[in-house]
Amino acid sequence: MGRKIIVIGSGAAGMTAASAARKMDKNAEVTVFTEEEHIAYSPCAIPFVLEGSIKDFNSIIMHDPAFYQKERDITLHTRTKVASADADKMTVTLSTGETISYDSLILATGGTVFIPPVEGTHLPGVYKVRYISDGMAIQEAMQTAKTAVIVGAGVIGLEMAVALKRAGLEVTVVEMFPQVIPRICDADMAETVQNYCESLGIKFLMNRPIGAIKGESKVEKVVAGDVEIDCDMVIMATGIRANLELPKLLGLDISPLGAVRVSATLQPYRRGRLVSSIFLAGDVISCESAVAPGPTMSQLGSTAVRQGRVAGINASGGYATFPAVLSPWISQVGDMQIAGTGLSKGLADYYGLSVMEGRASGLTKARYYPGGTKLDVKLLADRETHRIIGAQMIGGEDLNGRINWISSAILKAVTVEEFVNSFENAYCPPTSMVKDVVNLAAEDLASRW
Amino acid sequence: MGRKIIVIGSGAAGMTAASAARKMDKNAEVTVFTEEEHIAYSPCAIPFVLEGSIKDFNSIIMHDPAFYQKERDITLHTRTKVASADADKMTVTLSTGETISYDSLILATGGTVFIPPVEGTHLPGVYKVRYISDGMAIQEAMQTAKTAVIVGAGVIGLEMAVALKRAGLEVTVVEMFPQVIPRICDADMAETVQNYCESLGIKFLMNRPIGAIKGESKVEKVVAGDVEIDCDMVIMATGIRANLELPKLLGLDISPLGAVRVSATLQPYRRGRLVSSIFLAGDVISCESAVAPGPTMSQLGSTAVRQGRVAGINASGGYATFPAVLSPWISQVGDMQIAGTGLSKGLADYYGLSVMEGRASGLTKARYYPGGTKLDVKLLADRETHRIIGAQMIGGEDLNGRINWISSAILKAVTVEEFVNSFENAYCPPTSMVKDVVNLAAEDLASRW
Repeated sequence: MGRKIIVIGSGAAGMTAASAARKMDKNAEVTVFTEEEHIAYSPCAIPFVLEGSIKDFNSIIMHDPAFYQKERDITLHTRTKVASADADKMTVTLSTGETISYDSLILATGGTVFIPPVEGTHLPGVYKVRYISDGMAIQEAMQTAKTAVIVGAGVIGLEMAVALKRAGLEVTVVEMFPQVIPRICDADMAETVQNYCESLGIKFLMNRPIGAIKGESKVEKVVAGDVEIDCDMVIMATGIRANLELPKLLGLDISPLGAVRVSATLQPYRRGRLVSSIFLAGDVISCESAVAPGPTMSQLGSTAVRQGRVAGINASGGYATFPAVLSPWISQVGDMQIAGTGLSKGLADYYGLSVMEGRASGLTKARYYPGGTKLDVKLLADRETHRIIGAQMIGGEDLNGRINWISSAILKAVTVEEFVNSFENAYCPPTSMVKDVVNLAAEDLASRW
Repeated sequence: MGRKIIVIGSGAAGMTAASAARKMDKNAEVTVFTEEEHIAYSPCAIPFVLEGSIKDFNSIIMHDPAFYQKERDITLHTRTKVASADADKMTVTLSTGETISYDSLILATGGTVFIPPVEGTHLPGVYKVRYISDGMAIQEAMQTAKTAVIVGAGVIGLEMAVALKRAGLEVTVVEMFPQVIPRICDADMAETVQNYCESLGIKFLMNRPIGAIKGESKVEKVVAGDVEIDCDMVIMATGIRANLELPKLLGLDISPLGAVRVSATLQPYRRGRLVSSIFLAGDVISCESAVAPGPTMSQLGSTAVRQGRVAGINASGGYATFPAVLSPWISQVGDMQIAGTGLSKGLADYYGLSVMEGRASGLTKARYYPGGTKLDVKLLADRETHRIIGAQMIGGEDLNGRINWISSAILKAVTVEEFVNSFENAYCPPTSMVKDVVNLAAEDLASRW
């Protein structure tokens, strides 16, 4: 009889963990429980289906449960809620009452959209962007809605704003902070992004926490600070909180960031003691920052996949560790790409680091080569050590590799002087300037002391 | 009276050195001598003008001599040959006989296309791709020519083959090695590139060194091995050799690679002793490899610019060093991008390194996102230390940042296990797969031991 591995959650973390466990232990019995109907899709794709860049929701579903059963010998139970779990008895209990024992339990229960405690958030016409079912409901509502309010000007809020605007709706974004993408993007870069969105006809109400959602039988208006906005639908893009229902039933320790605290092996603690039969991955845990000492949240699909691999390997008798993260991120907002990595100015302040900032603007191709787009790069360094600690960039194309490039320099604790001196750029007129804008930003930053 | 700085050569190395010297020493007298008429253009752009991607040759010229005089107080003497130089007297002598003294001499005399010692290379209709004047002559010849032979299937040869094919000529590429891009690209990756070029209708004759170029008053045919190819024009894309005329007159030591040997400060040697008043940059020097100990050639525009900065700073009383290089490169061949960094398998063999190879194929965007192109990534690691030592990739878009990303990992001596474990990818469906193909190639490589 093989090792019994139970996975709760079928997102990127859960499905990667299940596959990694199967790969490591051919004899294990791997079972996944999920409340969802659809599995193996990228929630990051929802805005792009809604704006029409991706044909339909079916195309973002990579596999169905039968695929996992047949190709990977992984049994999926969809639309199945795990109601409780017991770490001592090593069992989970379904909402049907059925109790199942495990040798290893992988919790990949993800996160939930944070809903501010104001009236009216339960009204029909209020949506979140989390599951494919949310996306389908929004798509349905967009058929008749003429006006929408997006609550929250983070990356998902902006992607949704563009999607709804492109579909012909009047769109207003309400944000409680004075800038878009407040936590991970600096004000100067955020301004460029907001200006672009405004040029598409999206309206912004900044510095206004949402006060209430009003309506009789469905959404009619949003109250935000001193303003009331009539609307047919509301999208809550208000951030993700870890799903702590099961972790709390299991008695697992919660980190100060409100997520499950884990070891480098992604195992949790109970009153400070490691729980050796439980493994976690994805939005439900906090992890370590690779720039400033201490815990950080990294609620990204790319992180979920990397954590899923580690949790799956460890849950099936292997050994792997999950390292500290920089959480590089990228977003496509209309024709604009925005990316960042490491610390923003705001996060650096939070960690008590004094920073120097360098900036450069240029193009994604040689100046004379047609079709290049403007590229703005901002680099941040620790004022004391000169170490690069963060970057943000805005451009029309080709940001993904560039942000990973800077990420690897940050990860290896490279100073800005070393970057200027030693970090080379591949050059060809159709793909870059002879000195890439990243190199130019590093030169600017190095000149700031 | 300020420091007298003489720069010979107006390519990327020379003009960057002149500008860096001016920036460092506001009182210096900076003079540039060049045999060329046009300055401050990228020779890398020539194929893209010929294929029509760039409008005309005028658009690739960034500045004229008047700009440098007015904006940077740099005096240019175009169409002026420096016939000799004397390191003891610290003078240069023009072909007019005029002798001028210097305090610092910057040699940026570049390289020349290697012309194989066979008959007929002097015939009208035989061209090289080096100066903008070469490009203009080729453009003129393309008006009437119907068939062309490209000698050499390196990056420039392939870019030229596509340019001429797109202009409607029948194109045959003759290569003495069994694969395209022989030195810096592995055979398996080269095969993909060659197949693509053949799909465009370009013909290849491999394993055939050129034997002769024949014709009465102009080119009529190329003899290559056992084959004769009728043609109206021939492009010699046969590699670059350092221009050693002046360095030899100055008695400078030449490295085993046939280029001027320099210190980290880019100063040359005479019989082993440093010459403190001369500085070099660009295709005329060899430099140090950042992967395998020893000298290497890095005849790239991006390298020339970085060396020019160091030479200019040092020539004007500052201090900078030029570090060991990986020489990341990228090329656009039709709709295909090809890039590489560090060692190819062939170069690793040359340096006596035993390698492990990993490969992955995927897309530049999420599978379901329209418009992504195929992306093939190959990584090489040292079998003994597991250190990543080289990479090559082929794709339709977004290779530039990705090759720089791997370059920085190689530069920091990262093992493939560390890359798999710690190197993150920014993810968004329009810009990458959730695990980038680079990460997948690293996982494949890590599994090879």
